[in-house]
Amino acid sequence: MEQKGELISYRPDIKVVDCTIRDGGLVNNFYFDDEFVRNLYTANVAAGVEYMEFGYKASKEIFDVKEFGKWKFCDEQDIRDIVGDNNTDLKISVMADVGRTDYKKDIIPKTDSVIDMIRIATYINTIPAAIEMIHYCAEMGYETTINIMAVSTAAESELDLALDLLAQSEVGTIYLVDSYGSLYPEQIRRLADKYLKVAEKYGKKVGIHAHNNQQLAFANTIEACTVGVSYLDATMSGMGRGAGNCNMELLLGFLRNPKYSLNPVLKFLQNQMLPLKKTGLVWGCDVQYMLTGQQNQHPRTAIAFTAEQREDYAAFYQSLLDRE
Amino acid sequence: MEQKGELISYRPDIKVVDCTIRDGGLVNNFYFDDEFVRNLYTANVAAGVEYMEFGYKASKEIFDVKEFGKWKFCDEQDIRDIVGDNNTDLKISVMADVGRTDYKKDIIPKTDSVIDMIRIATYINTIPAAIEMIHYCAEMGYETTINIMAVSTAAESELDLALDLLAQSEVGTIYLVDSYGSLYPEQIRRLADKYLKVAEKYGKKVGIHAHNNQQLAFANTIEACTVGVSYLDATMSGMGRGAGNCNMELLLGFLRNPKYSLNPVLKFLQNQMLPLKKTGLVWGCDVQYMLTGQQNQHPRTAIAFTAEQREDYAAFYQSLLDRE
Repeated sequence: MEQKGELISYRPDIKVVDCTIRDGGLVNNFYFDDEFVRNLYTANVAAGVEYMEFGYKASKEIFDVKEFGKWKFCDEQDIRDIVGDNNTDLKISVMADVGRTDYKKDIIPKTDSVIDMIRIATYINTIPAAIEMIHYCAEMGYETTINIMAVSTAAESELDLALDLLAQSEVGTIYLVDSYGSLYPEQIRRLADKYLKVAEKYGKKVGIHAHNNQQLAFANTIEACTVGVSYLDATMSGMGRGAGNCNMELLLGFLRNPKYSLNPVLKFLQNQMLPLKKTGLVWGCDVQYMLTGQQNQHPRTAIAFTAEQREDYAAFYQSLLDRE
Repeated sequence: MEQKGELISYRPDIKVVDCTIRDGGLVNNFYFDDEFVRNLYTANVAAGVEYMEFGYKASKEIFDVKEFGKWKFCDEQDIRDIVGDNNTDLKISVMADVGRTDYKKDIIPKTDSVIDMIRIATYINTIPAAIEMIHYCAEMGYETTINIMAVSTAAESELDLALDLLAQSEVGTIYLVDSYGSLYPEQIRRLADKYLKVAEKYGKKVGIHAHNNQQLAFANTIEACTVGVSYLDATMSGMGRGAGNCNMELLLGFLRNPKYSLNPVLKFLQNQMLPLKKTGLVWGCDVQYMLTGQQNQHPRTAIAFTAEQREDYAAFYQSLLDRE
């Protein structure tokens, strides 16, 4: 495996994607106030971040709009209330889950939208539906990514087939997603290499979205970067479901491109993230998330353990080992 | 660089060193009660950990015994009060800082001691004094390690010379120590490779002691392990100065040798570490430690920032950049 770039130089192909509202929204049901989102937008622009993800394009048929904040749905007007026409270098992205979005209704032509990129999230068994969505979004004029979730539980032969199909679609970037935070750096490098080999053959980019169950989200992100992955997801203070994500402040401290600036991020952390944490929202590394990560399991049991304020780690561990 | 071992197998040469009392003692001035230390000892034995470090052999001429808990000094009788004659497979270690220990007085012959290993901590400019201490301790019958601190600020040419001298001494293990938590995995692999090349030539082992300023302590530990480092330092809940260390619970979850058991560690966390944290002791990743790590600086300013309960990250960052 070849290393791409040196610590002292920088790779201009790297794109940082802020997912604070989207993955962080899984912590607070997307109830961020406009002031917070506007400050985040301003901070991302000032920090030189390339993309900011505003949330999901979730189906209003499937999800009750009264039960979630507006960033679960990302109506065009709600984004425009924050960014106007977005006359900045920051691009705007939203995520759409295969099977949980009315994309033919809710995704309008790019010419009428401030959104730049649609990120399509799929499991390995819904690749054909994902390819249909990619095609639709590309025809509408958007940049697209495909995020194959829970890859740590996918059969390697199926993954190979999926990557080959996806690389031949209109998609721009294929994401390596460690949904369960279970992968070690050596596995990430091996997978990243696999993704890159297929993607580069068809002129596609590769991205990484890591979770912090084993305190490896940042390490896995920069290790993937080192072997050539170029779209790097991060969130402010690592805010995200369960153990959270790669911290934006760690990532920008690592990247050497002078276009990035840590200062606006630090100001956002002290002025917005610390008060948000003090409202009682909880995310980040903890023993229960480590255990689901180590066992390559969905974090839902750990999230319930956290909500119940349990501390009996050993009993929880035994319950995870019982998989019959 | 060759990978040693596969994720599915295990390397019998690996030794896990618990430093909870020694590095964690820097958080609470070594005031652990005997109940805590005894429970830690029992947990380490049950978990299959190879070494437990009880603290420092600090000079009572330099340090006032009234200002520190007893594990700053590790009197023979104090250790025996916990372990008796230590009829277990767990070996006992203490650390001795070059220039801050009266080793000729305080380190007694191994035949009269339950201590198995003396870890000698040095900076690059006190290598000759360290070699004298290695010689003394080896003559006394102990296993020895040399821990070269703050290696991220050492000139590479001096490090090469130091490694060559040390590898020819009686020392058993040479430690790569990331005192400032500033090193990235790719730097750790490169340094580990350098240490290993010299060490293996003279039949020595290499160890790693990582700090968690950039959430990389665990990642750097397992990456060093992957290229052949075999002595791995960790602490319960990552307890240690400032940002803390590699978490024992993460490390044992990673290692595949069936001799290790996570269960006693989890019980120790819930029964001992959680109550300890609730007394108000603070350690672990935080923005101020990340910043000193990114700037390759001693964490003392971040420790002061924490003690003063400051939250003005951006101002703190600017103060770090001012190095004149």
